[in-house]
Amino acid sequence: MSSTAGQVIRCRAAVAWEAGKPLVIEEVEVAPPQANEVRLKILFTSLCHTDVYFWEAKGQNPLFPRIYGHEAGGESVGEGVTDLAPGDHVLPVFTGECKECSHCKSEESNMCNLLRINTDRGVMLNDGQSRFSINGKPIYHFVGTSTFSEYTVVHVGCLAKINPLAPLDKVCVLSCGISTGLGATLNVAKPPKGSTVAVFGLGAVGLAAAEGARIAGASRIIGVDVNSKRFEEARKFGCTEFVNPKDHKKPVQEVIAEITDGGVDRSIECTGNIDAMISAFECVHDGWGVAVLVGVPHKDAVFKTHPMNLLNERTLKGTFFGNYKPRSDLPSVVEKYMNKELELEKFITHQVPFSEINKAFEYMLKGEGLRCIIHMEG
Amino acid sequence: MSSTAGQVIRCRAAVAWEAGKPLVIEEVEVAPPQANEVRLKILFTSLCHTDVYFWEAKGQNPLFPRIYGHEAGGESVGEGVTDLAPGDHVLPVFTGECKECSHCKSEESNMCNLLRINTDRGVMLNDGQSRFSINGKPIYHFVGTSTFSEYTVVHVGCLAKINPLAPLDKVCVLSCGISTGLGATLNVAKPPKGSTVAVFGLGAVGLAAAEGARIAGASRIIGVDVNSKRFEEARKFGCTEFVNPKDHKKPVQEVIAEITDGGVDRSIECTGNIDAMISAFECVHDGWGVAVLVGVPHKDAVFKTHPMNLLNERTLKGTFFGNYKPRSDLPSVVEKYMNKELELEKFITHQVPFSEINKAFEYMLKGEGLRCIIHMEG
Repeated sequence: MSSTAGQVIRCRAAVAWEAGKPLVIEEVEVAPPQANEVRLKILFTSLCHTDVYFWEAKGQNPLFPRIYGHEAGGESVGEGVTDLAPGDHVLPVFTGECKECSHCKSEESNMCNLLRINTDRGVMLNDGQSRFSINGKPIYHFVGTSTFSEYTVVHVGCLAKINPLAPLDKVCVLSCGISTGLGATLNVAKPPKGSTVAVFGLGAVGLAAAEGARIAGASRIIGVDVNSKRFEEARKFGCTEFVNPKDHKKPVQEVIAEITDGGVDRSIECTGNIDAMISAFECVHDGWGVAVLVGVPHKDAVFKTHPMNLLNERTLKGTFFGNYKPRSDLPSVVEKYMNKELELEKFITHQVPFSEINKAFEYMLKGEGLRCIIHMEG
Repeated sequence: MSSTAGQVIRCRAAVAWEAGKPLVIEEVEVAPPQANEVRLKILFTSLCHTDVYFWEAKGQNPLFPRIYGHEAGGESVGEGVTDLAPGDHVLPVFTGECKECSHCKSEESNMCNLLRINTDRGVMLNDGQSRFSINGKPIYHFVGTSTFSEYTVVHVGCLAKINPLAPLDKVCVLSCGISTGLGATLNVAKPPKGSTVAVFGLGAVGLAAAEGARIAGASRIIGVDVNSKRFEEARKFGCTEFVNPKDHKKPVQEVIAEITDGGVDRSIECTGNIDAMISAFECVHDGWGVAVLVGVPHKDAVFKTHPMNLLNERTLKGTFFGNYKPRSDLPSVVEKYMNKELELEKFITHQVPFSEINKAFEYMLKGEGLRCIIHMEG
């Protein structure tokens, strides 16, 4: 048992005091974990678009002050939990797996009834309270992870115990975006070897979807993005050709159908733009094509298509976190990296010490690079 | 070789001279088959809604005079085809399987490039001519089958050779509607044993979908229809409970979600009504639900849904002819009937001699019964 068991830990955390304003490194108190909770020492975290989205809080009911962060790797310093021992290496995940509900018991779903993502909740499930405070004033949690803190408290159902030999400064990116794109391809689209795949949106999630297609042995991987600057980078992730919808007068689904003799075998939509979603569906081949939606749309978006596009034997599916069950499946994704099947280094374009975490926000807002790793000891 | 080889056969056929007018039994000439064609003696045929739809020809560019009919069983009297011998029992099918194209070579598709259904074509592929005539004036074919004739000519790719012991007056219904509904469930929705299934539309196709769910071992089969009179009949096909959308103020998908703790595992839409299609999709459970569209919609219909319904891990698929490949798969459906797994008798509610074929149209127009078998010798 750790010497901090049952004690409040004082440590540094990057607190978002208000929407869109730079984070401030503060000394916070982190209360001990309660039943089914684990206290973690975060070693590395990375910044994902979802952090930025909720930090900007445009058109939302914001919850401030809050500690963001949900892609990370850390070490359990917990007590009272039998599934994990102090020192275990874990990835905290923004959505959980209780292993008891109908979703956890289904082979197909990862949308746990108890621990499914909740972006509106800023407190722990046990008692409706935050474990973070500054001088007694609570600081809200974010999606149950709040990894922009040297120590955090997480429900045990949101922690994937992984191979202790895996380098946390690399595999921390598997906590969210990279697994989301990779799983969308490997678990949901399942492109047969030699097939043709289109990927809409060449950000980190889309490139992870392309990486999945590369791993699956797709023979053609068509990257689709309105920003042609992304095409060169995308080659590293297996993209063999590119279509920029802005270069064509006709709808991009027609352009893709022309270069693929009727459509691609699989498509994966990683932008969240509703028109891209419709194009991604309509560009798959009749008879066998499968389109997978990953990107989260605007709340008022409506997906529209002629039903004959479906009746001609196309399939439309959506996925959440790449259909990975956090605890059951993430350890095997880490193994894919360990055995060199999956390449993570190419997603990591920046590194900053914790004290410079706001730089990571700047890179993302400028659209520079893919993932910035934040070194908590720095 | 049959004694009629190379000769014109004179026989009776029910000719539709104009849209919506009773068929007239006429003596027609049936020309000998050409390359890759087979001449058949039709023994039994049944009437499907699609015949009536194209005979009524509302809002279509009608092709008259024409010989309708596409659900039938017959006997090959052909020449020049190696796949079939005279006397073989066959089911003619409105869509074909060339076994050479990308669709036929795909394990998933049955939408043959060469022989896919074409409702606008009234002639044979070989020479663009009809094989039917009256005093030299051509009579058009319908979907390559034209089974309302004692003899017809069909492309060999549109003929399923079946067990000669199978009673053609029963298995003839497998040429279209019954296989369409059955295959939608067994091949596409694939309900696991013990699962909950909703079937929208309790006509012959919908009841065949329910029959598929019964065969698959579904524990609850919820029939959905705006005509409550159909509910009693539907019990015979495995339906365990019923919802009439007209009995509820809230959308039927919400009613179904309430009685199934969040939604059904599978749904099959067999009406073609666009609102029913949307309800059928939105009533499946998040995490694992699969909705299958079967009914053919109005040409201007638009399928609309919020993309979050997809992102919450629902699957939407369409099917054509239950995803059965006509030549490769129909023989095994006939065997399901032969081994008493599939019950066909309950679909057959009427029988008429060929001379009274117009009665079959009257039953269908009144919505009476399911399938009327027309005995060609009568």
